[in-house]
Amino acid sequence: MANQDDQFKKVVSHAKEYGYVFQSSEIYDGLSAVYDYAQNGVELKKNIRDYWWKAMVQMHENIVGLDAAIFMHPTTWKASGHIDAFNDPLIDNKDSKKRYRADVLIEDYVGKLDAKIEKEVAKAAKRFGDSFDKEQFLATNPRVVGYKEKGDAILHRMGKSLENEDLADVKLLIEELEIGCPLSGSKNWTDVKQFNLMFGTKIGASADTAMDLYLRPETAQGIFVNFLNVQKTGRMKIPFGIAQTGKAFRNEIVARQFIFRMREFEQMEMQFFVRPGTQKEWYEQWKETRLKWHLSLGMGEDNYRFHDHEKLAHYADAAADIEFRFPFGFKELEGIHSRTDFDLSSHEKHSGKKMQYFDPELNERYVPYVVETSIGLDRMFLAVFSHSLVEEELENGTVRTVLKLPAVLAPTKAAILPLVKKDGLPEIARKIVEDLKWDFNVAYDEKDAVGRRYRRQDAAGTPFCITVDHNTLNDDTVTIRHRDTMEQQRVKIADLKAIIKEEVDVKNWLMKM
Amino acid sequence: MANQDDQFKKVVSHAKEYGYVFQSSEIYDGLSAVYDYAQNGVELKKNIRDYWWKAMVQMHENIVGLDAAIFMHPTTWKASGHIDAFNDPLIDNKDSKKRYRADVLIEDYVGKLDAKIEKEVAKAAKRFGDSFDKEQFLATNPRVVGYKEKGDAILHRMGKSLENEDLADVKLLIEELEIGCPLSGSKNWTDVKQFNLMFGTKIGASADTAMDLYLRPETAQGIFVNFLNVQKTGRMKIPFGIAQTGKAFRNEIVARQFIFRMREFEQMEMQFFVRPGTQKEWYEQWKETRLKWHLSLGMGEDNYRFHDHEKLAHYADAAADIEFRFPFGFKELEGIHSRTDFDLSSHEKHSGKKMQYFDPELNERYVPYVVETSIGLDRMFLAVFSHSLVEEELENGTVRTVLKLPAVLAPTKAAILPLVKKDGLPEIARKIVEDLKWDFNVAYDEKDAVGRRYRRQDAAGTPFCITVDHNTLNDDTVTIRHRDTMEQQRVKIADLKAIIKEEVDVKNWLMKM
Repeated sequence: MANQDDQFKKVVSHAKEYGYVFQSSEIYDGLSAVYDYAQNGVELKKNIRDYWWKAMVQMHENIVGLDAAIFMHPTTWKASGHIDAFNDPLIDNKDSKKRYRADVLIEDYVGKLDAKIEKEVAKAAKRFGDSFDKEQFLATNPRVVGYKEKGDAILHRMGKSLENEDLADVKLLIEELEIGCPLSGSKNWTDVKQFNLMFGTKIGASADTAMDLYLRPETAQGIFVNFLNVQKTGRMKIPFGIAQTGKAFRNEIVARQFIFRMREFEQMEMQFFVRPGTQKEWYEQWKETRLKWHLSLGMGEDNYRFHDHEKLAHYADAAADIEFRFPFGFKELEGIHSRTDFDLSSHEKHSGKKMQYFDPELNERYVPYVVETSIGLDRMFLAVFSHSLVEEELENGTVRTVLKLPAVLAPTKAAILPLVKKDGLPEIARKIVEDLKWDFNVAYDEKDAVGRRYRRQDAAGTPFCITVDHNTLNDDTVTIRHRDTMEQQRVKIADLKAIIKEEVDVKNWLMKM
Repeated sequence: MANQDDQFKKVVSHAKEYGYVFQSSEIYDGLSAVYDYAQNGVELKKNIRDYWWKAMVQMHENIVGLDAAIFMHPTTWKASGHIDAFNDPLIDNKDSKKRYRADVLIEDYVGKLDAKIEKEVAKAAKRFGDSFDKEQFLATNPRVVGYKEKGDAILHRMGKSLENEDLADVKLLIEELEIGCPLSGSKNWTDVKQFNLMFGTKIGASADTAMDLYLRPETAQGIFVNFLNVQKTGRMKIPFGIAQTGKAFRNEIVARQFIFRMREFEQMEMQFFVRPGTQKEWYEQWKETRLKWHLSLGMGEDNYRFHDHEKLAHYADAAADIEFRFPFGFKELEGIHSRTDFDLSSHEKHSGKKMQYFDPELNERYVPYVVETSIGLDRMFLAVFSHSLVEEELENGTVRTVLKLPAVLAPTKAAILPLVKKDGLPEIARKIVEDLKWDFNVAYDEKDAVGRRYRRQDAAGTPFCITVDHNTLNDDTVTIRHRDTMEQQRVKIADLKAIIKEEVDVKNWLMKM
C-alpha cells in the first residue's frame, strides 16, 4: 500500500516536472479536481485521441464521427434519466458543517477493515517466511475471515439500500457503525439526501426567455439526439456507429486520484446501432475489439482484465469494464454497455419525434438497440503515463528514470543533439531538425553534457535521440539512440526519416490489433 | 443584399444536407445559437484544427502547446477584467417585454440607411447604364451623402457614449431616432443596463465550500496563468509562444449568422511572449505570418484584408483583424493583438505570485509583453465552407453543386466507386478501400449511376473519385476524377496512394506559406 502511494506520488510529480499535467489555476492555489495539460501532456492526450479516432472512425467504413456541443436542450437530460437519477447520497455533519458522500464514508470504513486484513497478512508472512500460504491464510484465519465477512455484509446492505432509495437505512448504517466525521470525529449527522451531479447554468439574458441548462455529464446523448440526422444525411445502414470525443462535467463531491476522477473530463464514446436481438453478439464483439485496441499499445496483457457488472444500470441489459492496473490497483478504464433501446425510445417519448430506422432488408421499422464503448481520455492518459514511468537500476549502479511511452503516443518523437556546441555540429543538427519537423514533433537540445541530455529525454519520454558528432562531418552519419534499450546505431542522415517513421507511424501500431 | 442572403441560406441548408452542421438538439426544437458538427463537419473541423496546430506548434521550435481546463479559478476573471468589463448594453421594451442589445438596435437603424443607399445606387445604375460612375454618385448625390453622414454621426455618438459608459445617452439616442421594438413597434423603453456575458455555475456541493465559477469566455487566460510553469518545465527562452485550442462560452444576447457567432465556440489562440519594447516588430511579423497561413489554403488573396483597430481594448497597444469575405460581407476571421504586459501583470497583482522571466542574455528580470493571434475555429470553418460552395453551369446546361474544399481539409479524401455492382468490380473497389483507409479517410459507394455518385461526392467535397471499371480487370488501372476540374486520368491502382498523398498532405500545403 505504501509502495503504491509512493509510486503514485512519483507519477503526479513527474507529470508536473516534465510538463505533462499541471494543477489548474495553480497561481490562485488551484481548483479542486481540475487539471491542465501542459506542453507535453497536450501532445500525449492528442495522440491518444487520434489513435482512438483513427481506429474507430477512419478504419471502420460503418462508423462516422460527430462533435455535438456541450450545451444541449435541457429536456435531453430528462429523457436520459440524469435529472431524476444522476445523484450522489450526501450527508452533513452538524458539528463540523462538513458534507460527505454517505457511500464513501461507508466504503472508507470497509477500507479500514481491508487495511486490517493486509496488516494481519503482513504479520503472518513475516512469521512464517517462505512457508506462508496467503490464500489459505485468508480463507482460514478467524480474525481475517471476520473482517472480510463484516465488510461484505456492510457493502451488501448499503448497495441494497441505495438501490431501493432507502436513504434512512444508509444513515442508520453510518450510525450503527459509529462512523465519525473524518475531520472532527463528531457523530452528529443530518439525514442523507440525494444531490444531482450535473453543473447548471443559464442561457439567454432576458428574464422571460432565460433557460436552465446543464453542462453535459456524458457525451453519449449528443449522439442519440443526432442519430436520425446522421443516419439520413450519411445514408448509413444498420449496423453502424457514431463516434465522438469531447468534454463532460460532473460535480463530484469526492473527486480524487489526480486525473482519474475529475470534475471536467474528456470522453471518447462510440454508440453502435444494431438490430434488436443482435445486441448480445455485438456486445461481445466490441468487448473483444476494444481490448485488442488497448493491447496494440504493448503495455502488457496482464495489466488488463474484464469486470462484468452484476448490478446493471437502468438502461443496460449487459455491461462490462475493461480494467487496467493503475498505481492504486485495477480500476475501470473503459466501459462496454449494451444500452438496449432505452435512450432512443426515451427521446422518442420526450420529443414526440420518431427515432426509428427503416431496415430495407427486413422491410421493417424499429428503434435500434445500442452497444456503447466509452473510455475516459484522461484515464487512458493516466494509464499510459503511470505504466510508462519506470525507474531502472543501471549497470553502473545509478538509477535512470525513463518514461517508456509507446512511441506512437510520445509527444516528441526525436531529440536532435549536437555532441558539442561548436565545430559546425549545431548547424548540422539544426538542419536535421528543419528536415524532420515536417513529419514529426522534434526537439533540439544543445545544453549540458550529452549523457545528461539523454537522461532528460528519457524522462520526458522521447523515443529517439539523434546525436551529431565529429564523424558526421566526414560521412553524413549520426547515432540514433533508442530510449528503452539505450542501444545506439550509426545511421545515415538520409535514412533517419524512414527509421523514425517505421517506429512511430499509427498504421504500424494499429496493424497489431 | 438579397443575393447575399440567398447564398447564405444555401450554405446553411447545404451544411445540414451533406452532414456538416446540424442545429443543436433539433429533436427538441433546437437550442438557440448552438450547433453540432455532423459526420463530415467533425472531420473538416478536425482538419482545420490540425492544420493550425501543425503550422503553429510542430513547425515552430519555440512554440509549445497547452490544454487548460474550461473551469478556472474565478479570480482569473477578476484579473483579466472580464468580471468588470465583459458586458453588453441591454435594453428592454416595456410593452413587448423583449430584451435587446441597445447597440445592435442602433446599428440596425444605420443598416437601414445603408440599404437605402444601396437602393439609390441600384436605381441610378439602371437609369444611367454603362455610363454610371458609382464612386462619383456616392460622393455627390445629395440624398445618398445625407444618409451616409447621418449614419456616421449616429455610430460615432454611440461609440463615444459606450466608451464613456454614458448609458443614458445611448437610451436618448434610441429615443431620438424613434427606434421601435422590432417585434411590436413599441417605443416604450427601459433604461440601458450592462449585462455580463459569462456563463456562471457552481462547483462543489457543500453550502460552505461551493464556489461560483464561470465558463471561460476566452482560452487566452489559461495560457497566462500557466505561463511560468510552461516556461520553467519546458526550459523556454523568450521569445517563445504557447498555443491552445479549446471551447469558450459567451452568453450572447443576439447570436446570429449561423456558426459565425455562437454561445459555445472554439478558439485557436497563441500567446507569444517577448521582451518589452520588441512587441511592435513581433506584432507586424505575426500579422504577416498568419495571413500567409490563410493564403496557403488557396482561397484567393482578394478575400482577405487587414482591419486595424482604431479603438483599442484596455489591454492592447495595437490590434488588427484579418477579415474574410463571408457571404454577408467582410468580417473578422482572426485577431492579432499586442496585449502588452497587461494580463501577466494583472495576474501578478491578483495572485501575489511573481510572473517574471529572467532573461539570461540581458541578465535582467521582467514581465514579458505578449502578442496574441486568436482565430475562431467555427468562423474558419464557415469561411472555408461558404467560400467552397459553388454552383457551376456545365456545358450541357445543367448546374453542378460542388464543395471545392482545399483538399488538405476535405473530410473524405477519395470515394471508391465500382462502375457496376457486378462482374467482380465491387470486390476490387473494396480491396482499394481496404488498402487506402490506413492512410486516408475514404468512402465506398456503389449506389446509383456513376454520374450521380460523382455529383454526390462533388457536393460533399470529396476531392477524388476513383472508379473501377471493366478495364480494371485486365490492366489493374482505374480512373481518378478530380472534383474541381472533373478531369479524369487513367492510373495504376498501385500509384493511387502516392497520387492522393501528393494532393492532400499537410506538408505540401504548409510549404506554400
